[in-house]
Amino acid sequence: MNKPLISKAFNPDNFRHQGHLLVELLGDYLESALQSSKPVNRWRDPEDQLTFWQNDYKEGDRELGRFFKNLIDSSLHMHNPKNMGHQVAIPAPEAALAGLLTELLNNGTVVYEIGAPAVVLERVVCKQLAQEMGFDPGKADGFMTSGASLANLTALMAIRNIKAGEDVWNKGNNKQYALMVSEEAHYCIDKSLRIMGLGEAGTIRIPVDEHYKVRVEMLESAYRAARDRGVEVLGIIGCSCSTSTGTYEELEPLADFAQAHNLWFHVDAAHGGPAIFSKKHRHRLKGIERADSVVMDFHKMMMTPALSTAIIFREAKHSYRSFSQKAQYLWEEQEKKSWFNLGQRSFECTKLMMSVKIYTLLRQYGTALFEEYIDYTYDLAQSFAGMLKQESDLELALQPETNVVCFRYKPGKLSSASLSKLNSLIRKKLIEDGEFYIVQTQLKEDIWLRVTLMNPFTTTVELRALLEKIKQLGRQLVSEQ
Amino acid sequence: MNKPLISKAFNPDNFRHQGHLLVELLGDYLESALQSSKPVNRWRDPEDQLTFWQNDYKEGDRELGRFFKNLIDSSLHMHNPKNMGHQVAIPAPEAALAGLLTELLNNGTVVYEIGAPAVVLERVVCKQLAQEMGFDPGKADGFMTSGASLANLTALMAIRNIKAGEDVWNKGNNKQYALMVSEEAHYCIDKSLRIMGLGEAGTIRIPVDEHYKVRVEMLESAYRAARDRGVEVLGIIGCSCSTSTGTYEELEPLADFAQAHNLWFHVDAAHGGPAIFSKKHRHRLKGIERADSVVMDFHKMMMTPALSTAIIFREAKHSYRSFSQKAQYLWEEQEKKSWFNLGQRSFECTKLMMSVKIYTLLRQYGTALFEEYIDYTYDLAQSFAGMLKQESDLELALQPETNVVCFRYKPGKLSSASLSKLNSLIRKKLIEDGEFYIVQTQLKEDIWLRVTLMNPFTTTVELRALLEKIKQLGRQLVSEQ
Repeated sequence: MNKPLISKAFNPDNFRHQGHLLVELLGDYLESALQSSKPVNRWRDPEDQLTFWQNDYKEGDRELGRFFKNLIDSSLHMHNPKNMGHQVAIPAPEAALAGLLTELLNNGTVVYEIGAPAVVLERVVCKQLAQEMGFDPGKADGFMTSGASLANLTALMAIRNIKAGEDVWNKGNNKQYALMVSEEAHYCIDKSLRIMGLGEAGTIRIPVDEHYKVRVEMLESAYRAARDRGVEVLGIIGCSCSTSTGTYEELEPLADFAQAHNLWFHVDAAHGGPAIFSKKHRHRLKGIERADSVVMDFHKMMMTPALSTAIIFREAKHSYRSFSQKAQYLWEEQEKKSWFNLGQRSFECTKLMMSVKIYTLLRQYGTALFEEYIDYTYDLAQSFAGMLKQESDLELALQPETNVVCFRYKPGKLSSASLSKLNSLIRKKLIEDGEFYIVQTQLKEDIWLRVTLMNPFTTTVELRALLEKIKQLGRQLVSEQ
Repeated sequence: MNKPLISKAFNPDNFRHQGHLLVELLGDYLESALQSSKPVNRWRDPEDQLTFWQNDYKEGDRELGRFFKNLIDSSLHMHNPKNMGHQVAIPAPEAALAGLLTELLNNGTVVYEIGAPAVVLERVVCKQLAQEMGFDPGKADGFMTSGASLANLTALMAIRNIKAGEDVWNKGNNKQYALMVSEEAHYCIDKSLRIMGLGEAGTIRIPVDEHYKVRVEMLESAYRAARDRGVEVLGIIGCSCSTSTGTYEELEPLADFAQAHNLWFHVDAAHGGPAIFSKKHRHRLKGIERADSVVMDFHKMMMTPALSTAIIFREAKHSYRSFSQKAQYLWEEQEKKSWFNLGQRSFECTKLMMSVKIYTLLRQYGTALFEEYIDYTYDLAQSFAGMLKQESDLELALQPETNVVCFRYKPGKLSSASLSKLNSLIRKKLIEDGEFYIVQTQLKEDIWLRVTLMNPFTTTVELRALLEKIKQLGRQLVSEQ
């Protein structure tokens, strides 16, 4: 049978030609982005953007290079030092190349035989991580999964299956189960518990103090109140760090509490976990070695393209308890636990070769790369906080503990509602302008500006320019009112 | 602050240099793989493989090219025409290049402003898909997510939130809910319902006939029996196609049944959905236009690197009903539904630019590429079935409807237990040999060999060689016993 389009699409010479062109295009992107001379983003209204690409699709211009160029130009330039937005990795170029390799090879990692090297690299990476966290790597075990939301769901499933006083996996929920967690935890925790059919009562939210840390003195009463309502508390979750403010919870009191009540102790270290590699900052994670399970993203603070998340269990046997599944076409011996058939433990049935990307960085640079990165970006946040404190019309929300900094423009005496509106408008103007990219968040009732200093090439020069721009926009907006 | 490792890792010249080398390496891989002169796989025992890579990690050889070369050599060569294993895409090279672009840019697609073009391309792709499925693209809406397991969970969540007679999202499960589905459905359905706290009773398994299609005449009694047990049935799921045998369910009777009982009608078309692009095979999906929701993978039959899955809802409003989440740092106006802020609908909080890869193929080749591919691989399965029928010591399990074929070596009169053992051994030998890659599955009680003809360069030549090899191994194993 004649296969003209397939023959064209799979032509190796075409791949080489287009591949070299793309490498050059991306090389140009990197050079330009790193110099910070270009805007971070080129703002287009959603409907305009849609029209642009609908036309691209209809026109049928088949020039791949032009398409890639347009796509790069329309994207957010994460590598630009003026990008200070979301908690998503600025990928190291070599990790992205490792990604190209996995995109083409496309081996799965659910069964050893279809993705042998990637399966094994996942083990090497997870064992290394277990060791860094202070677990016994001989006893601990873990695997990788598609993002921290899924990793946290995976942990919560293990907790319910292990800690519930009934066989929930087979019999379903017959009681109200709940987990205790900071009110500042990532929204995926609450979402997961609702997915699990536990409703809003599945999350026992512990209030935080003025530093956005869980008020440890409230744990006992919250626990008792839940039990008095007939709720079976299964575990407690520590946040390392919280999402909005980047605050590290004190893990040791949580570990003590879990131990006292025979609860599972889980730590969501999606963003803040890699501080474990820093001699200077690892004290923030003291107590993590007492966790029963830990989730950590490589695609936040480890320069790895998304999605790439590890979940580590202190005891290997627990890593098999999240899901239990029979797939006739995957495993012959359904009951045998094999470390190398990862699908026995993972949510995914097609699971990416995600270990290759993080392994590439570990292999090339060791953990020293991550230490350098944590130290630089965390210290930069301190410098930024210092700058903010010196400005009379800018306000720092709280002293940062990571590379997340919340602040706002605060000229004179305005109500907090007016301040929220003003800062929200400032950010809108910033986005439309495109020179900088920052985000915002809500703390208590108010809107604050928020930066995550993810880019290792951001310096105080860009931060100073950002503040100047914010003040300028702020003054303009105030004068217009 | 000095950042020697970071400066090295992000050096654009280094990226260009390594990038060009990798493109050449992968070009060599493609050329070699497509010729089928090389083995598909180089078998190494898991523990040996682990030792190999542990040494690689320890040795600290920093030559990236050598690492990539080793990795390619140790991987399963999906592009080799003798790979006939799993239902995972053989990626088209240009889609893999699009993947490189997304690996480096790493924009998220949860909020419009951080991944504008990829968000918009997701809309273009989903609208096109809705149209092909026979939905009104003006009314239908969808988005992409990380794999079909997650897409099915997303659909099930919408079903429970919409169809349950209580507010499960907030109040939790207070009843036994269930879905009706073929006993041959993918294991992710049962797993999702257990995650949702519904236990084994959450799945009402409908038996299949000898063609592995749901026995429609049993729907009514199964439904009544469930209601008599106090179970609230929320919906029915059609499989297009089943996983083990690749059988398409008759969708129209399921749609009728759903309509009669006011149930949600969901279709898991992860593998078989793309037949919608084939004039010759789209009749298999007749009735899909009556589905309330459909899941379809691009990373199975659409040559796109994993993970890349669409979930399409017939009515746009339902696409917002799976999850409901507040994330202070993402959306200012929490309640406003915006098509361009995909995180309001997705499970993921960091969501990949996955649309770029499938869009690249659609833009370059249109849907005609997929028609060519479906027609070729589905027809090849028919040819293979014909070959099997002519062989006296080989048995075809059932006439294929897709590109999945189940068969076994059956010399003379052996018990079915002996046949299972024999075929399982044959496959083990095949894997260790490495020339071919096929899988196996369990049908009823027996083990059968199974191929998925995913590679558009596989021809009857490789299939004939496979059968010769199987017969040879079979004879040898029988004689040794």
